[in-house]
Amino acid sequence: MLLGPNRYGKAETRVVRITRDGDLHGIKDCNVGVALSGDMAAAHLAGDNAAVLPTDSQKNTVFAFARKYGIAEIEEFALLLARHFVDSRPSVHRARVAVEEYFWDRIPGEDGTAGTGHSFVRSGRETRTCVVHYDGPSRRVTVVSGLTGLTVLNSTGSEFHGFAEDEFTTLAPTRDRVLATEVRAAWRHRAEHDGYAASYARARRALLAAFAGTHSLSLQQTLYAMGCRVLEECGEICEIRLSMPNKHHFTVDLAPFGLDNPQEVFFAADRPYGLIEGAVLAEDAPDAGFAWE
Amino acid sequence: MLLGPNRYGKAETRVVRITRDGDLHGIKDCNVGVALSGDMAAAHLAGDNAAVLPTDSQKNTVFAFARKYGIAEIEEFALLLARHFVDSRPSVHRARVAVEEYFWDRIPGEDGTAGTGHSFVRSGRETRTCVVHYDGPSRRVTVVSGLTGLTVLNSTGSEFHGFAEDEFTTLAPTRDRVLATEVRAAWRHRAEHDGYAASYARARRALLAAFAGTHSLSLQQTLYAMGCRVLEECGEICEIRLSMPNKHHFTVDLAPFGLDNPQEVFFAADRPYGLIEGAVLAEDAPDAGFAWE
Amino acid sequence: MLLGPNRYGKAETRVVRITRDGDLHGIKDCNVGVALSGDMAAAHLAGDNAAVLPTDSQKNTVFAFARKYGIAEIEEFALLLARHFVDSRPSVHRARVAVEEYFWDRIPGEDGTAGTGHSFVRSGRETRTCVVHYDGPSRRVTVVSGLTGLTVLNSTGSEFHGFAEDEFTTLAPTRDRVLATEVRAAWRHRAEHDGYAASYARARRALLAAFAGTHSLSLQQTLYAMGCRVLEECGEICEIRLSMPNKHHFTVDLAPFGLDNPQEVFFAADRPYGLIEGAVLAEDAPDAGFAWE
Amino acid sequence: MLLGPNRYGKAETRVVRITRDGDLHGIKDCNVGVALSGDMAAAHLAGDNAAVLPTDSQKNTVFAFARKYGIAEIEEFALLLARHFVDSRPSVHRARVAVEEYFWDRIPGEDGTAGTGHSFVRSGRETRTCVVHYDGPSRRVTVVSGLTGLTVLNSTGSEFHGFAEDEFTTLAPTRDRVLATEVRAAWRHRAEHDGYAASYARARRALLAAFAGTHSLSLQQTLYAMGCRVLEECGEICEIRLSMPNKHHFTVDLAPFGLDNPQEVFFAADRPYGLIEGAVLAEDAPDAGFAWE
Repeated sequence: MLLGPNRYGKAETRVVRITRDGDLHGIKDCNVGVALSGDMAAAHLAGDNAAVLPTDSQKNTVFAFARKYGIAEIEEFALLLARHFVDSRPSVHRARVAVEEYFWDRIPGEDGTAGTGHSFVRSGRETRTCVVHYDGPSRRVTVVSGLTGLTVLNSTGSEFHGFAEDEFTTLAPTRDRVLATEVRAAWRHRAEHDGYAASYARARRALLAAFAGTHSLSLQQTLYAMGCRVLEECGEICEIRLSMPNKHHFTVDLAPFGLDNPQEVFFAADRPYGLIEGAVLAEDAPDAGFAWE
Repeated sequence: MLLGPNRYGKAETRVVRITRDGDLHGIKDCNVGVALSGDMAAAHLAGDNAAVLPTDSQKNTVFAFARKYGIAEIEEFALLLARHFVDSRPSVHRARVAVEEYFWDRIPGEDGTAGTGHSFVRSGRETRTCVVHYDGPSRRVTVVSGLTGLTVLNSTGSEFHGFAEDEFTTLAPTRDRVLATEVRAAWRHRAEHDGYAASYARARRALLAAFAGTHSLSLQQTLYAMGCRVLEECGEICEIRLSMPNKHHFTVDLAPFGLDNPQEVFFAADRPYGLIEGAVLAEDAPDAGFAWE
Repeated sequence: MLLGPNRYGKAETRVVRITRDGDLHGIKDCNVGVALSGDMAAAHLAGDNAAVLPTDSQKNTVFAFARKYGIAEIEEFALLLARHFVDSRPSVHRARVAVEEYFWDRIPGEDGTAGTGHSFVRSGRETRTCVVHYDGPSRRVTVVSGLTGLTVLNSTGSEFHGFAEDEFTTLAPTRDRVLATEVRAAWRHRAEHDGYAASYARARRALLAAFAGTHSLSLQQTLYAMGCRVLEECGEICEIRLSMPNKHHFTVDLAPFGLDNPQEVFFAADRPYGLIEGAVLAEDAPDAGFAWE
Repeated sequence: MLLGPNRYGKAETRVVRITRDGDLHGIKDCNVGVALSGDMAAAHLAGDNAAVLPTDSQKNTVFAFARKYGIAEIEEFALLLARHFVDSRPSVHRARVAVEEYFWDRIPGEDGTAGTGHSFVRSGRETRTCVVHYDGPSRRVTVVSGLTGLTVLNSTGSEFHGFAEDEFTTLAPTRDRVLATEVRAAWRHRAEHDGYAASYARARRALLAAFAGTHSLSLQQTLYAMGCRVLEECGEICEIRLSMPNKHHFTVDLAPFGLDNPQEVFFAADRPYGLIEGAVLAEDAPDAGFAWE
């Protein structure tokens, strides 16, 4: 028997970091996952834990680092953690740190005044994500940012026809349908940089703009347009991967009730759904290495 | 054996209604649940379905009504459905119609322009709700509106001390803690009216303002303040019921690592959680009848 | 403003109790929710917590009682807790304790030997439940037991026809359909007793037997038969409430592909679904009081 | 811009297949996901769908194949589908078909009799899985089987000590702890064969036996032992990958209440949790190719 690839770590450490600028507070609400790999054969084969830093210590590190260094951008926090685990422990050769960030808005005061400075409401539906890898021996770092839960819908401007047909095809071609999806996207940065917040905002805006602005002949076409737009607007990004379920909205047949339905009433179905996945790369994208593991 | 209270109907009909004003589209995204009761003994005792309108027909009615009448406000749509089921069928004595509404924003155009008019992104984290009852024999209607999923947090301005103690009490009193909760609220209207959208906006704003503006000595106090504020600002509402989990944010002890933690780093716990539930009523609130069933 | 009904407590305390009989261990895996009510006006109106036993203390009590008294049957454990909270604290007038129990089987040894005595695998899909109320002033106790997640299916022996029809009815009558549901049931005991484990087993068996044994003309009929069977077989139970979604299994139309479908291939739909709810009572059932709150 | 790897298909087609042997029915309850890749550049770049078989047709194929060929073992059904999509359409070069199977038991008759033959209850907590790939150009097939949701617990026989320590380590070593995990496992078959049902039973039994039979010095050691046991008992399997969260059960400190806690009362925590992932390979395992994509 051979021990194959393995890793371990603490998953889903829910750390909330409050910052205080006088009475004006800020909040970072994160979920951190750490996975370490390296010289772990003895732990697996013989139960010898000498190389195993407990996952409990990893959790403690997340909290302590949040105090010592703050959480500016999640990519930066993840890089700090990844470098720490690898550089402080010879038995750890590589670290993968994933962070999810949940968004909060300030609760405004009444009559548009500034509010208390310490009152917040969870906002938006999407989660900002990052996955960072740091490999000790090669000193190589990869940074992937992204989002999940961005649900969008075009109520027109979407067609689907001219498709392949076989003996099991009953779908009618359409020149006008609702197109809805919940975007899961992850984009790879060319290198570390210091503008992750602006980069995120730019990429998110590009995804929305391309979704809205593309007259769609297929969800594949829309996906590709969204990926291209992100790369066009974000020179710091060299690759993007998108996973987009086709959240079917079926036009309800109301003819049995003497009613027409000129694309006004839809049934939003749960399952099954189409699932479209694809990547777009810049022509000069460097090799991804272990970025997507 | 006696047949006790019973009801039946179609749950979770997911209807999406698109409106078109030229190129400017609108969207209502709803989940409708119908429950009917009445002369249903024969169905239970003998499998005689003569009084049973199929739940499939109820689903069809939801879609057909969405086409015929549109979905202006969810309370109005629920009332239309409830009256229809009771008034059109003698065997149905009472209808309960519950609707959830999910929110969408328009995707703005680039450079702040107006966008396509048909492109939307799911927004906010809360769901607007209503539960309507219509009783045929008495012609009585009750309307309860509400929301779920409104998650709020105060990073200071919350204390908890002076509480009862017993042999199982180890909690330390605190003069400064994070207070976070996910509000589930339902409020009863005094009567039908034609301002449900404005009423919802007013009630939601009151909940947020009272949460932010209350220096809290307990979550119970905050809950009561929120309920009172809604009643104060919304004369059309005579009762509100609130269910508020205390989403604990524990201050992490960083002393073992030589670090202080002046209310900056918190662990957001999942379970267990405190659960605070309470109602506030106007002094002249009419009898609730079956409103809360 | 008036403070209406209110209660508070610790929800979802996940306690696992191991018992040891030499090398033979036992496991009780529970989720406990406590809700207390009484003289809590000052906490709501003035933030005066003198009557408020912290929810943290309630959690501690759950764990301490698990050590002191064990968890024989969940109803007994809930009653111990409910009486404790009310009887030990004058400001608490009533306690509601809800417990969920998750099932484990022993992992058998190889070749059918006895296994280690300390190795378990989560089993079954249903959760056993109870809700106990204890009212201090009246000394009255109510005990409701039940289950959730019992999913059952008859692949024939179910019809649905002779139903009411209206202008929105398109459903075809059927003499043979799949009938599937996920049973949520709660049954009220006439009084406290000492046979909750046997009672649970008897009630569960009765539910299954009646579901399987009823040639069904409607899900309502099946529900009623199931309720009656439980009352017939369990003299200690005086009322049962059932909530049964009709998990639709639609016969797929394969005619476009030149295939028949003699009730062999079904699409299992998620939403919408029918929801059938009903109660069955013994003719001499005592008043329920607050049992179902 | 370059189009990178992409695939599309219908996800989560919920097909239920009933078989009839006189009055004795059988049930297969599955969730099928199809993902196709090949000459799809035109769809992405130009919205030209000539190579795109609609996901709706894929869904229809799942249902039609369930009728024509039945669903004997999920691996066989997945292979049938994968070969069909690739071999019938030149633009499709590779198919990935994933199937989940949910288990049902027969409802026994009363007094141990045989039951109706058509009545079933959902059983077990785990899901059987498979992922099959078929590559047209190379004619290569890979078959991975597995399970999710197998939750196991040892109430003793688990230690954790001798681990690495750093400045963030506060965990105390332990000689006796509860070890619990929810096993997600996937194993690669050396080649297609005709014994998937027996293979599944053997692998599942090996996982349980190794979990129960390993005196554990770390979850890594247990994971490796489980993987080895599967390979030892199942010559048809050449690789297994395991993902095992350490579902922490913390011994509650009852000393403040004057109680000891000799490993009897535990708090079952949700998050964070350790996550241990690893693979075990036979020494002569053939190259995995695209099996794990």
